[in-house]
Amino acid sequence: MQTLLVANRGEIAVRVLRAARELGLRTVAVCSEADVGALHVRMADTHRVVGPAPATRSYLDEDAVVAAALDAGADAVHPGYGFLSERASFAGKVVGAGLTFVGPSPEAIRLMGDKVLARQTAARAGVPTVPGSDGPVATVEEALEVAGSTGFPVAIKAAAGGGGRGIRVVASAEELREALPRVQGEARSAFGNPEVYLERLVQRARHVEVQVFGDGERFVHLGERECSLQRRRQKVVEEAGAPGLPEAVRERMTGAAVALAAEVGYHGAGTVEFLYDPERAEFHFIEMNTRIQVEHPVTEMVTGRDLVREQLTVAAGDPLSFPQEEVRVQGHALEFRLNAEDPDTGFLPSPGTLARLHLPGGPFVRVDSGSEQGGEVPPFYDSLLAKVVVWGDTRETALARARRALDEVEVEGVATTAPFLRRLADHPGFVAGSYHTTSLEEWMTDSSEAGLARRSA
Amino acid sequence: MQTLLVANRGEIAVRVLRAARELGLRTVAVCSEADVGALHVRMADTHRVVGPAPATRSYLDEDAVVAAALDAGADAVHPGYGFLSERASFAGKVVGAGLTFVGPSPEAIRLMGDKVLARQTAARAGVPTVPGSDGPVATVEEALEVAGSTGFPVAIKAAAGGGGRGIRVVASAEELREALPRVQGEARSAFGNPEVYLERLVQRARHVEVQVFGDGERFVHLGERECSLQRRRQKVVEEAGAPGLPEAVRERMTGAAVALAAEVGYHGAGTVEFLYDPERAEFHFIEMNTRIQVEHPVTEMVTGRDLVREQLTVAAGDPLSFPQEEVRVQGHALEFRLNAEDPDTGFLPSPGTLARLHLPGGPFVRVDSGSEQGGEVPPFYDSLLAKVVVWGDTRETALARARRALDEVEVEGVATTAPFLRRLADHPGFVAGSYHTTSLEEWMTDSSEAGLARRSA
Repeated sequence: MQTLLVANRGEIAVRVLRAARELGLRTVAVCSEADVGALHVRMADTHRVVGPAPATRSYLDEDAVVAAALDAGADAVHPGYGFLSERASFAGKVVGAGLTFVGPSPEAIRLMGDKVLARQTAARAGVPTVPGSDGPVATVEEALEVAGSTGFPVAIKAAAGGGGRGIRVVASAEELREALPRVQGEARSAFGNPEVYLERLVQRARHVEVQVFGDGERFVHLGERECSLQRRRQKVVEEAGAPGLPEAVRERMTGAAVALAAEVGYHGAGTVEFLYDPERAEFHFIEMNTRIQVEHPVTEMVTGRDLVREQLTVAAGDPLSFPQEEVRVQGHALEFRLNAEDPDTGFLPSPGTLARLHLPGGPFVRVDSGSEQGGEVPPFYDSLLAKVVVWGDTRETALARARRALDEVEVEGVATTAPFLRRLADHPGFVAGSYHTTSLEEWMTDSSEAGLARRSA
Repeated sequence: MQTLLVANRGEIAVRVLRAARELGLRTVAVCSEADVGALHVRMADTHRVVGPAPATRSYLDEDAVVAAALDAGADAVHPGYGFLSERASFAGKVVGAGLTFVGPSPEAIRLMGDKVLARQTAARAGVPTVPGSDGPVATVEEALEVAGSTGFPVAIKAAAGGGGRGIRVVASAEELREALPRVQGEARSAFGNPEVYLERLVQRARHVEVQVFGDGERFVHLGERECSLQRRRQKVVEEAGAPGLPEAVRERMTGAAVALAAEVGYHGAGTVEFLYDPERAEFHFIEMNTRIQVEHPVTEMVTGRDLVREQLTVAAGDPLSFPQEEVRVQGHALEFRLNAEDPDTGFLPSPGTLARLHLPGGPFVRVDSGSEQGGEVPPFYDSLLAKVVVWGDTRETALARARRALDEVEVEGVATTAPFLRRLADHPGFVAGSYHTTSLEEWMTDSSEAGLARRSA
């Protein structure tokens, strides 16, 4: 591997470019016409404009990105997260063009991208799955039979969905009857695949995921992350490790994640997501993401491992640079996603020019950002402005550090979620570390002193 | 401890304010009239202007600073480094006003500030000192007798000097005869104390120092730092740990540093500096700094300990928060001092307005800065703009990270040492880790391809 094209934008493009530079690689950025002045473009050795602003016509244009890689003399492509990162078709085109795809094989992406097949693979590896249909359900009759054994409420999920998309929860047979054909139709139009499956709705559960890595022969984990603080199924704050997770559960969960990676002969970085029910101390496989995750820095901070560097060396054919027994988790890390969104207007995106952008620094604070003072936040893409990541020897120290780091954030020109995140850092439920996937939305409708319903003003 | 006044400016004031906020303390900044708009002032809960721009009339005005602390309701004062940090008189005034001084006792500062007494104390603790006079030398006859046993060249040092100031090297009896009364006179006018002592000049030696901590009863070390890369006796790059230091030497050196701290019942953070002769594998005590050091972040990055937080809790009366056996050094850290100086004009200070200041971020990079885009670099103080600190699992990884981090630095409005530091990061002698206290100045006169004599253009 000599020249890497980074098929992404924003903070993750910057993150990948940093790792590439540290490995001495030549780097190629891609950008839309709207991003020509962006930080990631300036940080690369060269760049290619792959199309107009809408992502579908630039960052999501598989052929344009592969053509840019060939044109710029790249011999490898890193997809980042989002965009083309989990499209088996794109990985196939990269490999077909004779380039290295920094990620697993197109087959592994396809397998894990089909949530029905992924469930079946997990079950084969002995990984507990959420009770539900063993495969796709085609008819209302089949669905009612499955729901009879799982009980209501039950979730109808698109096989080609994932990441919180393509899900409908129904509470009764009547709702199921009505919803099934509708979800199938939506899945067809959204993902080009009408297949759906059923899962029991696990309530008051936590979203805990395990970082895994494989080189096709050895498979390791780097501990777990707690990602239950979500708004509209989008993660807001992530932690490593999961607060209060019993050690025995941690061991079983990380073991299950490694077993799944081994089952598919996994190559590269992956994340195995679980729903964890603290009351029953049970966990169930949800899905596996076959790419680097937004929240990977919390794992890096507690393990001292550079995950993107490892992606690049493993993709270049090196074996994993460390065995499982050398992975040690130390202290606690928290990531806060700072978005250019206005908490006072229902989190509407707030594009504009960053007249001022002052981000925190100092001890045990890491900031990953693709933005800079004077730069633009375009209206076309996701609104992630920066990830503010902190480490502490204990969760309490990390939280105190997070508060002072968030206090340092100063942004002018666009609205941000900084005041919301700062209030969240004081919320008793968050401080106690006892929350589940619907807690944040509950807190946001709580207008008491402790709640998050108050405006930031 | 409830309210802390930070008696400093720039990056160290910001550093201390961060630790104070994380502990939930109320904070008071001081500033000169030139610094009213500075970052450290804005980061504090309140501030007091202590005088006009020249440091002697503001930051060095002991009474004005103590008065500001009392006026603002502070119950503790952190002196940072430089300025008043090693003035026993200031520590005495703080304590006399009923406030907590974040540092050792005025007596410990006085003892270690007198380099003759410090040498004697070190010898008493069994710490090897550089061969020289056992106490001050008053006459040329005494000096010649000492030089007769140490051999030439020999260094004449002011008892009240330190940190590279008040030193004269002489190569012969004739030079000694001529220089002694002159150094005595200079010491009197510079430090108010004409006492000088003699030390054999250790050539091709390395400056290696040990971070110690005490709570008056327990004394620990946090490993060593290599600080030999110096220009005009000012450190430019620091490392933790010292590359190539034999483990047996490391053990003896850290043991000697802890013994010295114990000898004086030390309280707080201190640094014991040694000259290390790699050829003889011998080390000798130089001096002990009774304050936090500029380069403390490299120690924080390899140990995971927050040294300034520890200073504050120990000053508040808490015991040390960790025993020696819990201190583990992991990986390697490097600090690069980014100064607003022009390498192309002999490192002349380059004050001005920071039209642009883009500092690095991302994995395992820490930036400590008291400056910000749009802010001023005043001409009155030292020119440290930012400390760029990197960590890696190996020294090689840390160096690669340092290169990419330095590549990210963009400054407009003032000249900086960034291009010089970037070239230094590629220098074969630095890369090999085999250098001593005069290496950097040798490299700087080397106009070959590998040398640093070339201009940055």
